[in-house]
Amino acid sequence: MANINDNYLKLRGSYLFRETAHRAAAYKDAHPGAHVISLGIGDVTRPLPEACIKAMHKAVDEMSAEETFRGYGPEQGYSFLIKAIIENNFKGLGIEEDEIFVSDGAKSDTGNIQEIFGTNNVIAITDPVYPVYLDTNVMAGRTGTCGSDGRYDGVIYLPVNADNNFVPELPEKRADIIYICCPNNPTGTTMTRPQLKKWVDYARENESIILFDAAYNAFITEEDVPHSIFEIDGAKECAIEFRSFSKTAGFTGTRCGYIVLPKTVKARAKDGSLHALNKLWNRRHTTKFNGTAYIVQRGAEAVFSDEGKRQVKETIDFYLENARIIRDGLTSIGITAYGGVNAPYIWLKTPNDMPSWDFFDKLLNEANVIGTPGAGFGPCGEGYFRLTAFGKRADTIEAVQRIKERLSI
Amino acid sequence: MANINDNYLKLRGSYLFRETAHRAAAYKDAHPGAHVISLGIGDVTRPLPEACIKAMHKAVDEMSAEETFRGYGPEQGYSFLIKAIIENNFKGLGIEEDEIFVSDGAKSDTGNIQEIFGTNNVIAITDPVYPVYLDTNVMAGRTGTCGSDGRYDGVIYLPVNADNNFVPELPEKRADIIYICCPNNPTGTTMTRPQLKKWVDYARENESIILFDAAYNAFITEEDVPHSIFEIDGAKECAIEFRSFSKTAGFTGTRCGYIVLPKTVKARAKDGSLHALNKLWNRRHTTKFNGTAYIVQRGAEAVFSDEGKRQVKETIDFYLENARIIRDGLTSIGITAYGGVNAPYIWLKTPNDMPSWDFFDKLLNEANVIGTPGAGFGPCGEGYFRLTAFGKRADTIEAVQRIKERLSI
Repeated sequence: MANINDNYLKLRGSYLFRETAHRAAAYKDAHPGAHVISLGIGDVTRPLPEACIKAMHKAVDEMSAEETFRGYGPEQGYSFLIKAIIENNFKGLGIEEDEIFVSDGAKSDTGNIQEIFGTNNVIAITDPVYPVYLDTNVMAGRTGTCGSDGRYDGVIYLPVNADNNFVPELPEKRADIIYICCPNNPTGTTMTRPQLKKWVDYARENESIILFDAAYNAFITEEDVPHSIFEIDGAKECAIEFRSFSKTAGFTGTRCGYIVLPKTVKARAKDGSLHALNKLWNRRHTTKFNGTAYIVQRGAEAVFSDEGKRQVKETIDFYLENARIIRDGLTSIGITAYGGVNAPYIWLKTPNDMPSWDFFDKLLNEANVIGTPGAGFGPCGEGYFRLTAFGKRADTIEAVQRIKERLSI
Repeated sequence: MANINDNYLKLRGSYLFRETAHRAAAYKDAHPGAHVISLGIGDVTRPLPEACIKAMHKAVDEMSAEETFRGYGPEQGYSFLIKAIIENNFKGLGIEEDEIFVSDGAKSDTGNIQEIFGTNNVIAITDPVYPVYLDTNVMAGRTGTCGSDGRYDGVIYLPVNADNNFVPELPEKRADIIYICCPNNPTGTTMTRPQLKKWVDYARENESIILFDAAYNAFITEEDVPHSIFEIDGAKECAIEFRSFSKTAGFTGTRCGYIVLPKTVKARAKDGSLHALNKLWNRRHTTKFNGTAYIVQRGAEAVFSDEGKRQVKETIDFYLENARIIRDGLTSIGITAYGGVNAPYIWLKTPNDMPSWDFFDKLLNEANVIGTPGAGFGPCGEGYFRLTAFGKRADTIEAVQRIKERLSI
């Protein structure tokens, strides 16, 4: 008799964006004429950089002729892409080619990485945060059940809110695996080098591993915010970094990301012996994954060409200008807003501490604007709300105008 | 203190094709002038169908303009592709759109599917078989350690060899999850409808689940071999099917596959309650995967166009002719060969029961031909050897000629 993985039954309800999509669809059904603008899900709207388009056309052509056709590539990614990644994103940080694993995106990577760890590890996540970290650990059995407060037993929640200026404090109970998303999704806030150094020191003292999600790294504008955790001394003994082309170059529907896993990062087996996580991940990656499409890897490589870099910068600047428009608009009517400076997300405090799902309905009904309730990212997201800068310019301006004019606060 | 997943330490050595590549490279280093022909790894060599090339160029262009750009798609795959899959591959079998999950390939799917099952399930695999089934279960802790006979404790091995005409017999001990690869990799052999019906009946009687890998289904030429397990009465209560565009349409480096999981397939939780596996897999797929690249899905859709179907048939016929050339060549010098009729693999009995890794070295040294040792696919693969029909025509003819002329048997 086959048995299911009972841990799945612990998972709360459905995925956040399913519910927001459901409510939005219901509203549109009831108001067929309404022009609803979404600043909700973190999906890009600008086309791919022309450099990537050219590179992918060329790669498609290569697949049409026997002499240039590519079948299975290295599961870890083609050397041409890995070299470009190191040269452009990790120069001087001593990252080697066999420490990069190219994948179909950071969602897969941040979801799958937990497999190489035992189920007895205590995980710590910032609250609020991207839901994939927690859900994948629930599925693996690394948590207890979910309480009425929305928290799973056995998980260390690290609150990030206005009280601590969105910088998590070191936990009282020891955490074995620590997820840090920086710039943070959903708050759009970051950590400075000294703030991150405290976590690296903590991890080294406690033999913990930091899973550092830098998917939004391209949006960093401030000097004191690190682009990679490997800029911090000691991180190469305790950290794994996740990167993505999704938000950098518009690859959300094209799919490419990568893990940086230095060979010096180790963890213990039950018998106390130390094992390089690079080797374990290599085994996982080569056993359960067959490489990212060649065409996509050529597109990703083009992100690092001179033309690609210029086009990516234009796109990022465009979204950051959207972020400024949203943030300034909110501030002008007395709403407190965070993020949006080093990230495409604006994290606003709901007026009068309104529950975030109520604010979702209010914003949808009064301004016909869709955002994402903070509570969907964790209990400490209650009373906050996320808007994204990924919209079209006209939509963004229109949405802000409506919020300013129509929202009764 | 972070702990590793100790199950990884149970995994035997490295992945099969790593070792064959290593030995081949060593030979080439020692014999720089040698023209070594690989009939080893099951990778295609023919270019993508022109219909797919056209469709992907069009999709790349769509990604270059704001009006037609695609960001995140449905994690389960675009409806245009799912409809084409059902219309062309499952017509009349009652498969619904929400029973198809598009992915980046059958390796990922067959590797990941075990996650929705508890770790206490007893798995059964044919021996020999594609190594991913077993390795992913070892990683998940569904096996004991590996004995000196190459078998993991707690796993039911179902021998398929010349003695049973490569048709596995029902196990004596009850199996909860049964992997069947049909047409089989590596043996190239198949099961008829009545033979497969026995397994479906067994699964229903025992509340077992059959994981049916049909990645090589496009090569089936014989009438009595089912293309889908859902042609068998009752399979929609107990089976999950895996399909791939890799071997059908040359997508090994382009990456697209899918799972067919009827909503009527259920398994029990610890409390005895029944749960639809479709719902569990949907949760897994939407939490840990973000959809296959839009460009790739458009390429896959084109496989089902009239032009695409004609081009795919030409390619499959080409490989099947290679298979015939290899099989006839082997037979002509007294080597017994199986498969190659409904599959791109020829499974030969090594002369004089030579150990399969010895035969690998012999073939490499004497004929400069690379194949894959049967032992790499399971203990019962010992004494057998796999050659693939995916080579270029001239290489295939040359390899067979060398085997006939140079191999001392």
